[in-house]
Amino acid sequence: MNIFTNPSRAEWRTLATRPTIPLADLEARVLTIMDDVSKRGDTALLEYAERFDKAQLRALQVSEEEFLAAEKEVPHDLKDAIHLAIQNVRRFHEPQFTHSDIIETQAGVRCWRKSVPIQRVGLYIPGGTAPLFSTVIMLGVPADIAGCAERVLCTPPNSSGGVHPAILVTARAVGIRTVFKAGGAQAIAAMTFGTETIPKVDKIFGPGNQYVTLAKQIAQRSGVAIDMPAGPSEVAVLADESCVPAFVAADLLSQAEHGKDSQVILITTSTQVVERVLEEIHAQLRTLPREGIATEALDNSRALVFNDMETAMDFANEYAAEHLIIACEKAEELAEKVVNAGSVFLGNYSPEAAGDYASGTNHTLPNNGYARAYSGVSVDSFVKKITFQHLTQEGIASLGAAVERLAEAEGLMAHKNAITVRRLG
Amino acid sequence: MNIFTNPSRAEWRTLATRPTIPLADLEARVLTIMDDVSKRGDTALLEYAERFDKAQLRALQVSEEEFLAAEKEVPHDLKDAIHLAIQNVRRFHEPQFTHSDIIETQAGVRCWRKSVPIQRVGLYIPGGTAPLFSTVIMLGVPADIAGCAERVLCTPPNSSGGVHPAILVTARAVGIRTVFKAGGAQAIAAMTFGTETIPKVDKIFGPGNQYVTLAKQIAQRSGVAIDMPAGPSEVAVLADESCVPAFVAADLLSQAEHGKDSQVILITTSTQVVERVLEEIHAQLRTLPREGIATEALDNSRALVFNDMETAMDFANEYAAEHLIIACEKAEELAEKVVNAGSVFLGNYSPEAAGDYASGTNHTLPNNGYARAYSGVSVDSFVKKITFQHLTQEGIASLGAAVERLAEAEGLMAHKNAITVRRLG
Repeated sequence: MNIFTNPSRAEWRTLATRPTIPLADLEARVLTIMDDVSKRGDTALLEYAERFDKAQLRALQVSEEEFLAAEKEVPHDLKDAIHLAIQNVRRFHEPQFTHSDIIETQAGVRCWRKSVPIQRVGLYIPGGTAPLFSTVIMLGVPADIAGCAERVLCTPPNSSGGVHPAILVTARAVGIRTVFKAGGAQAIAAMTFGTETIPKVDKIFGPGNQYVTLAKQIAQRSGVAIDMPAGPSEVAVLADESCVPAFVAADLLSQAEHGKDSQVILITTSTQVVERVLEEIHAQLRTLPREGIATEALDNSRALVFNDMETAMDFANEYAAEHLIIACEKAEELAEKVVNAGSVFLGNYSPEAAGDYASGTNHTLPNNGYARAYSGVSVDSFVKKITFQHLTQEGIASLGAAVERLAEAEGLMAHKNAITVRRLG
Repeated sequence: MNIFTNPSRAEWRTLATRPTIPLADLEARVLTIMDDVSKRGDTALLEYAERFDKAQLRALQVSEEEFLAAEKEVPHDLKDAIHLAIQNVRRFHEPQFTHSDIIETQAGVRCWRKSVPIQRVGLYIPGGTAPLFSTVIMLGVPADIAGCAERVLCTPPNSSGGVHPAILVTARAVGIRTVFKAGGAQAIAAMTFGTETIPKVDKIFGPGNQYVTLAKQIAQRSGVAIDMPAGPSEVAVLADESCVPAFVAADLLSQAEHGKDSQVILITTSTQVVERVLEEIHAQLRTLPREGIATEALDNSRALVFNDMETAMDFANEYAAEHLIIACEKAEELAEKVVNAGSVFLGNYSPEAAGDYASGTNHTLPNNGYARAYSGVSVDSFVKKITFQHLTQEGIASLGAAVERLAEAEGLMAHKNAITVRRLG
């Protein structure tokens, strides 16, 4: 962890940059895979499963037998924890589905907005070092609340051709019955173009490595929407002397273990806090199975010490963290000053891990500075808000002259005429 | 207009395609301009104004004198119409700014979501054949309601180096005081990277030609958000025998006059409706100053006749029109069946022109089929919804065991530990 004391504002932009690990030929490789899937469909997917996942698949779709076997494999206490998480996520997300009132903007002119589910959504759940069934909850619950008619899930198979049972059990628990064994850019391509087995969708959700992220961006050019641009995960902890260094260290490490390109930032007004947190990090690090990954991530990371909390908060807003933990005495007051962040955790007893799994908020959040303009996933992400209007003859009478005048001034006489024929008609 | 009677569902995807006018070397040209602006800033912008807009500019920013002169130039009746439109758009958009309640998902676990304005937004208003001051209303009003701290507007200068007075008067009326004379891809580049005069923004809004649209997509790769992917404007009219052919014709023409790449679609259950609408189109077309543009657009356009209204509605959903007019007897009932559309207009007295200008709904809408997954611009587009959570020690006690179990099952022991230190601490 590199320590910076009172860096000048001119240095802030640099200090707020995220680590990037550029992959050579990334774009060319992803384009080749996507093009191949668009042309050869299932055949290409089966070949990629063999090549990238070392899996010989008989079928792409997870069978009913596999779902039943998964139900038996997952221990009861884990199922209970999954159901508790689903319950809390549902409680938090349910009120997000809004029905807006009809507004009569003027006599005879009624306008309203209606949330309509996106019809076909595709959820991508990465494989890799951890089976992220928690992401199935975070995407599946809002998709269910929104009422998306067709919900499919793609996830890479393991080398025996199976899918982690916790992913299957969670998928069922949130109402997803269609799961495909496909990973990486090839899965994104399948949901973008459709294959014999995997349907084309309207919007693709979910995290992934650089291949998946780039494939999602390319999918966008082909008319498919995506949840958000994604990069490596990150946390910033804003701490004052009221923090508990062991807790702060544990939070920084829980982010650092995600991947060696994860970034953790400690922002504080106290050099003593930095020292004590670093001591705790070193002590806790030794106990972690993912020590190697966390150590590399910490090398990318920064501690910043500022003279006053106001400047520290300004830096936090400049950084625009995916997760911002405010481990300060006046956490509620400081939270009011947050303008850029994905999700904010207040006080000493609100670890990021709570929101990652089960408190109810969504864990699919904007990182890499995108929190300046993007929100995390919510029910909003699974609906369109379609506007409707109904004008009566009275409405045309009261609004018509203004519309005619405006259309005329823009030089759009056919627009004007669409009013005129109705005023006279 | 090409007429198709009862096309099979296999043909629907083709019939729902939009016209594209590919420009050779578009990407290379846009990338060159953007790269140039990122390196040479204002100097490049002034050169492009001379080259593309034939304007010799002394300054990029519109001066106070120019604003005052514009106030004098715009006639009173046009100002009144602008103010009426602003009032209705404000009435419709104001309730969109939501404050969500705190939800206690379980004992000691409080979560909430707060709308926070995107700090820096850039609005692009095209020049070209029509001065689109109505778009200033549609973007400026929600930006004002959201409370975006920095709002800048870019629009190309005319050949005398000025900006249309109605654009300036409207900008002031919606609280925008910073207007720059910059158009095309170079304006998007300026707001993406920042120049000596034009600030870098977090999100770029507004319509434009293929250069602007592609520049916005490229801006996205540099970390700036955009409102939505945009293509040529379009309308679909779903009509039965209760429609007034003269009104339908006027609506189709008001879309067709936008540009030769605009698309208008008539969907009906009656060949007689097609015949009578076509007659009306030919009669009205002759009276239009933009007859040439409208005629070309109509060549790209289609009339579809189906045996029953249910199939007709299905096709409308497959098409996913930016604007969908339902000129049918049972308009309200059919409106319930709309799953893909940007904005819907019900009955014989709800022309698209009303929503384009002054009924209150937004006219910045998804086209080119993007209505399957995207919403039109609203106050939502100008805010982030940041989630917050506060757990007490009781909250950790009630939630902690489940989080530990979930983290352990995902193999993320540092996540588990962030709970454990707090349960023991």
